Formats: sequence, structure tokens, C-alpha cells
Amino acid sequence: MTKFRIAIEYDGRGFVGWQRQNNGPSIQEVLEEALIKLSGEKTPIHGSGRTDAGVHALGQVAHFDLEKDLDEKAVRDGLNFHVKPHRVSVLAADIVDETFHARFDATERRYLYRILNRRSPPAILKGKVWWVPVGLDARAMREAARRLVGRHDFTSFRATRCQAQSPVRTLDAIAVDRIGEEIRVGVRAKSFLHHQVRNMVGTLKLVGEGKWTANDVRAALDARDRGAAGPTAPADGLYLEAISYD
Amino acid sequence: MTKFRIAIEYDGRGFVGWQRQNNGPSIQEVLEEALIKLSGEKTPIHGSGRTDAGVHALGQVAHFDLEKDLDEKAVRDGLNFHVKPHRVSVLAADIVDETFHARFDATERRYLYRILNRRSPPAILKGKVWWVPVGLDARAMREAARRLVGRHDFTSFRATRCQAQSPVRTLDAIAVDRIGEEIRVGVRAKSFLHHQVRNMVGTLKLVGEGKWTANDVRAALDARDRGAAGPTAPADGLYLEAISYD
Repeated sequence: MTKFRIAIEYDGRGFVGWQRQNNGPSIQEVLEEALIKLSGEKTPIHGSGRTDAGVHALGQVAHFDLEKDLDEKAVRDGLNFHVKPHRVSVLAADIVDETFHARFDATERRYLYRILNRRSPPAILKGKVWWVPVGLDARAMREAARRLVGRHDFTSFRATRCQAQSPVRTLDAIAVDRIGEEIRVGVRAKSFLHHQVRNMVGTLKLVGEGKWTANDVRAALDARDRGAAGPTAPADGLYLEAISYD
Repeated sequence: MTKFRIAIEYDGRGFVGWQRQNNGPSIQEVLEEALIKLSGEKTPIHGSGRTDAGVHALGQVAHFDLEKDLDEKAVRDGLNFHVKPHRVSVLAADIVDETFHARFDATERRYLYRILNRRSPPAILKGKVWWVPVGLDARAMREAARRLVGRHDFTSFRATRCQAQSPVRTLDAIAVDRIGEEIRVGVRAKSFLHHQVRNMVGTLKLVGEGKWTANDVRAALDARDRGAAGPTAPADGLYLEAISYD
């Protein structure tokens, strides 16, 4: 029995999300089916965490056990062969210690949120960015974002259906940068609540529009009430960027 | 009568190319239909040049005449509204002199070619890059590309069905840069022959693989024979980047 860790890129459109569900194709299912074709083994693939429908990944991480004797390249290239024609790509496969767990061993998760901030809608980047036609003040958004850094009760920014036992999380960093027509929001934490990144971005957009101030963002956080913060930004712009392990 | 110049971004997948054809949707047709909905006028939209099926644009330019009194913003936003759900976006609309011609007045055309050079296939960038899994030497490609700059008979690099009267063109510049996992080839000329960029890139890839030398590229050019150069790179990686006017 060998334990493998894989890093995965995917285009979230057309998927119900990472996790297997009855209402449509998931990335997990597509990979598990590819693994059956490659190895003949029906074995679960455990991700570092779920991503919602339409959310993309540049570096999701997952693990699984394999009886068959396959080396790292054979697993990476074999999964990529059998996963076709889905927009899922295994970037790397590594043999890891049998105790490794993609979810429980993760020390940091990084997400990237891409906003296309221009008057004309996206053609090339359709489904890959949140299109915001009204001009946003990235500097004001950056300033407001700082108020969210640290250890807080993030009730105001988690989905009402979030199943985490505690609403307390530590946001290690949040960066807001304008790159041409794009505004990129990068966040880092050990873990996030359900919809936390999208709810933070939806709130920061209000600041970018000049409707809210940085103090309003802080007041929304302190309210510990989902209704106090801004709307949920669409899945299109969200990318699970990378997972760190010790 | 007012003459408008528009700049257009499009995702070439799903289109037969820029120009109207009987075998499927074209970008030209989609824009002309949107213009009818916006203005009630059935008027031709003239592009700076054709792009083939699957080729993308970041800044195609076209012109048309309009009887209806619409300002620049109304044209841009109105076309974008009516062009939905196609992956076509009007970036700008400007009123220009009545003598303006998108094709004949162009002084320079720029194309970008994107190669994703990594072992794993593209998920996020599927259809937007040429996936080349074998490692390419971008420096050798850059060196070889220099042999193509200048005024030459480009017969070896034009499609056999190219309808241009002369195979002589002046390649003003060609740059090859590696940016992480991508190799980007940027080219500039007053005009290009049919498939010229894709045939140059397909030939430079042979250099990147170490199969050809810079001298082989120059010999292929001098042969004035399509069979002497490399294969045609796929449409996926090609972007009409910008058109210049005086």
C-alpha cells in the first residue's frame, strides 16, 4: 500500500464542486473514476477541503492509497490520461508518509479572487473572473481589508449553512492589488469558513465602490451577524491557489 | 451617417473565425446581428483582417457606418448587451473620420502566441494555449526567431491556400519570453500571410525541442517551400493582440 499526494488544477465550471454529490459531476468523482481506470482500484480520494460549484483550483491537494505498484510519474500522467475530457489536471503526484492527511495536515490555505474591473464584459476570461463594470478603488479596498486580519469571530462572513463548529478563524493575510484591468485579492489562513472568502470580497467591493468605509467593514465584523456584511461574490472569480504542509 | 471604430475581444472557440461563413457562427455575424438589434440597421462590419476558427482576439478592430444617432458609449454598451451570450466583448467604440478603414489604414498588427510548457495538460487555460509537454529551450527559440526578422519571401511559412498576391512581408519584431510555465511569442508586422504566425511558431517549437537549429530555420525560410518549414501550431494559442493606426 502506497500513499500518494496529488496537486490538482481545475476549472470549476460544469462541476457541482470538489465533493461527490448526487446532482452532478464533481472533481472528486472524476478523479476517483480516473483512478479506477488507471489502477483497477476503487479507492476514495480525500481533498484538503471542499470547493463550491464553479470555484476553480490552481493547487488543490488530495491523497489516496494505492495497492498497485505505480511510480509518481505513472500516477500523474495516468490520471491525466484517464480524466479526459474534463478540465481537471494533475500537476504533481508524490509518494508520502502513510500518516499524511490532505485535510488535517494542512497548515495554510491560500485563495485568490480575481475581479475584472472594466466597463466591457469579459470574453476571454468569462467564468474566470467577477466582472465589476463600475470603477473600484483598490487602495480603499486594501485599507479596509486590513481590518479583517487576525483572529476573529467571522460569523458575519460565513454562510448561514456553514457547518463549522466554531466561527472563530485567524486570517493571516489579505492583499488587494490592481494589475491593469484586474483587482486581485489574495488571502491566507490555516482554514476558512464556508463562503468566507466570497463574503469578504463581496463586502470589500462595497468599499471599492465608495458605498462603505473601512470602519463599516470593521463594524460588520463586530456585529457577528451575516446580515451585517455585504453580499456573496460569485464563484467565478475564486481560485483555491495552494495548500501548505509542514 | 457616422463612422465608428470598435475594438473587440473574443474567445475564438465555437466560432468559424472572424468572417461570415455558411458553416457556422462567426464573430462578424454575431456583431452585425447585435448592431441590427441596437440600431435597426443592417450594415456590414469590416474587420482589420480575418482570424481563423479558434483564434482569439484581445484587440481586433473593425469599422461600420450608422445612420442612427448614437454616442460612443451607447454603441459600446449596446453592442455588449445584444451580443450576449457570445464570448465577444466590445472594449471601445470611437467615432472616426468617414475615410477610416479598419483594414487598409492599419499600420501594424500584433499577435501573441501562448505555449503552456509543462508536463500536465491545461485545465484553466484549456483552448487558450498550445500545450507542449516536452521541455522547450526558450532561449534557443528566441535566437532562431531573430533569423526571421526583416523583409523576406515567407512562402515557407504561409498556408498553401493563402490568397495574398505576394509572399513578401516585413516582420518587424519577434520576441520569445518564458514566463513561468508559459512561453510567449509576440510578433509585429504591417501584415501577415495566412497561417504565418502559427507556421513560424510551429517551426520555432522544433528549435525549442532541440530538433532544429537556428540555421535550419533560416534554411527553411530561404527554401521558399511550405514543405521545408515546420508544422502549423494550433489555433488555441493564437491571439490577435492589437492593431495600430496612424
